[in-house]
Amino acid sequence: MMFYLAPMQQHTFSYDHLYNFTYGVFTGMGCSNEHAATATKVLLSADLRGIDSHGVARLTGYVRLWETKRVNARPDMKVVHETPSTAVVDGDGGLGLVVAPMAMNIAIEKAENVGTGWVSVRNSNHFGIAGYHAMMALQHDMIGIAMTNASALVAPTFSIERMLGTNPIAVAIPAGVQPPFVADFATTTAANGKLEILQRKHEAAPIGWVQDSAGNSSTDANELKKGGTLLPLGSDREHGSHKGYALGSIVYIFSAVLSGASYGPWAPPFPAYVPMPVNMPGNGLGHFFGAMRIDAFRTSDEFKQHMDKWILRFRNAVPANGHDKVLIPGDPEREMEITRMAHGIPIVDSVVEELNKIGATFELAL
Amino acid sequence: MMFYLAPMQQHTFSYDHLYNFTYGVFTGMGCSNEHAATATKVLLSADLRGIDSHGVARLTGYVRLWETKRVNARPDMKVVHETPSTAVVDGDGGLGLVVAPMAMNIAIEKAENVGTGWVSVRNSNHFGIAGYHAMMALQHDMIGIAMTNASALVAPTFSIERMLGTNPIAVAIPAGVQPPFVADFATTTAANGKLEILQRKHEAAPIGWVQDSAGNSSTDANELKKGGTLLPLGSDREHGSHKGYALGSIVYIFSAVLSGASYGPWAPPFPAYVPMPVNMPGNGLGHFFGAMRIDAFRTSDEFKQHMDKWILRFRNAVPANGHDKVLIPGDPEREMEITRMAHGIPIVDSVVEELNKIGATFELAL
Repeated sequence: MMFYLAPMQQHTFSYDHLYNFTYGVFTGMGCSNEHAATATKVLLSADLRGIDSHGVARLTGYVRLWETKRVNARPDMKVVHETPSTAVVDGDGGLGLVVAPMAMNIAIEKAENVGTGWVSVRNSNHFGIAGYHAMMALQHDMIGIAMTNASALVAPTFSIERMLGTNPIAVAIPAGVQPPFVADFATTTAANGKLEILQRKHEAAPIGWVQDSAGNSSTDANELKKGGTLLPLGSDREHGSHKGYALGSIVYIFSAVLSGASYGPWAPPFPAYVPMPVNMPGNGLGHFFGAMRIDAFRTSDEFKQHMDKWILRFRNAVPANGHDKVLIPGDPEREMEITRMAHGIPIVDSVVEELNKIGATFELAL
Repeated sequence: MMFYLAPMQQHTFSYDHLYNFTYGVFTGMGCSNEHAATATKVLLSADLRGIDSHGVARLTGYVRLWETKRVNARPDMKVVHETPSTAVVDGDGGLGLVVAPMAMNIAIEKAENVGTGWVSVRNSNHFGIAGYHAMMALQHDMIGIAMTNASALVAPTFSIERMLGTNPIAVAIPAGVQPPFVADFATTTAANGKLEILQRKHEAAPIGWVQDSAGNSSTDANELKKGGTLLPLGSDREHGSHKGYALGSIVYIFSAVLSGASYGPWAPPFPAYVPMPVNMPGNGLGHFFGAMRIDAFRTSDEFKQHMDKWILRFRNAVPANGHDKVLIPGDPEREMEITRMAHGIPIVDSVVEELNKIGATFELAL
């Protein structure tokens, strides 16, 4: 018996084309022009950087959340508590794509005043890629940090229950003539988006990415649809999954327990068709942002010279057989951004179809 | 052919007995009484918590560094730069066991004033377990963070060269009636101490802990003595080693590039017989500390109620087959501390012998 798998069909769109469409959808939802512009920039930064799972492919998901009134298109975002170096922001149920940059700007402002700024956010929604928000600090000569909780898909070490989200951490650090260091990663062995790619290709997942509902290791890329769970970074206890579990937990606590957002198995799910958890211990999704002024530690020039030295030394580390060179966190995404800005962004046909469906609601075509 | 392996011989000592001996060694080196007391408390906290590789087993290493004048027993530690929420400390070549608590206290003081405090340290030495310093924040109703760079033993993803240390991160978070959350972990798949245990037992290491000098995966627990390297958390690219590499790099940059310590392959080695790297780009080892006041975000009572809820919910997550329960970071170490404080601390005979040798220098016997 043979299967014939058609190659995935896709079309390529320019950034401007996707920008206009996405902006139209957000204003169609009732967002202000300013909020729609911010949300569009944040969302499309994922497509530009090659994180296809977090870009326009998620736009339908945001619209569904808005339709079910889980997203407020006209949020009245507020600082509800603060000190010179900290703040808690209530996002009023707004798009995380809008709430997150507002909160990150507060962190940056506080860093300008007292050296560092730290903002925990409640009552928000999915905020796109963490890296975008962390990178906002770079132009201010600051280190930027962003993290968020997310729908529960991950089992802690020794468990089979969905307790944690993929809870990403991003850290952006300015350099001098070298490009900045930008790390942005889920605290799981593999992000859910990587499983989705394997599903489309009908390929197996490597051992260590997921376990089945009984806790056995599995290579089935569809395991999450059958009650299985993603595994924390490290995969199993012997390979340090307790460290990934601890990292994911820290992200939860900073993002949600500090702010008063919901957490753990009670985090609000991204798919609008999944019922909200009952007895939620807080409001909405939570994020955490940090900004540290470089010259709160040493002169920006000195720091950047050493970052350049650090980056060059690592780039020139002896490569292992079969590899050309060592990468610096942020290298692949930056190269992708240059290519896609120049040559367009490929979108698979199933996503194009979905986008045209939601576009119709707002009298827009992709 | 058969091998007969004698069981490892060990003796058990009371905390007070080890305290008096260690304190005697530090004052013998010329430390002030106050510094010797601090260094002893920090060092022995590792033995109490079951991190045997970082406790008295390292005392000989510190003495050797002092003998070769790489450790200054009478450091003049100074804040060399500061803002309301940040500081850079120069440790003047002192014991990290002394420099680190001094720097952490500055972070705590700054948090008292402006909500959070962040201190980067240069010109220091090995600081014991990161968890001790992070936990100093707990009694002040603060979250504590501690990290440090370390001698290069780890290859970044796609490389065979020793570029990173095991660069641990510790985060301590207060709870209410539940014990605090205390994560303390190397950013590698396995810490070097775990390999040392396997070496003593003549056992193989799991795949994914080390690679040989050519970059092949290896199960030889002695691989580091043959030019091999430890692997970042995640083990290989497919299992997220680029995330462990990014985490280790962030620890380096915060600890050393922000402060002006040495970094990457130029980090000063812990064994005194290993020559210092040439053309070091900074001074000594670096650390980074953070303290965040809980009530800079929400009331301490509210926060602690939610931490208790979080901890109980995770402790009661459905366990996988073959496991009793899910652990909260810090559980095993806290239980070990209670046991060892009551029943003593086992020290293997080879370490007892070493300690008696260095004790003789100071007219002390264990």
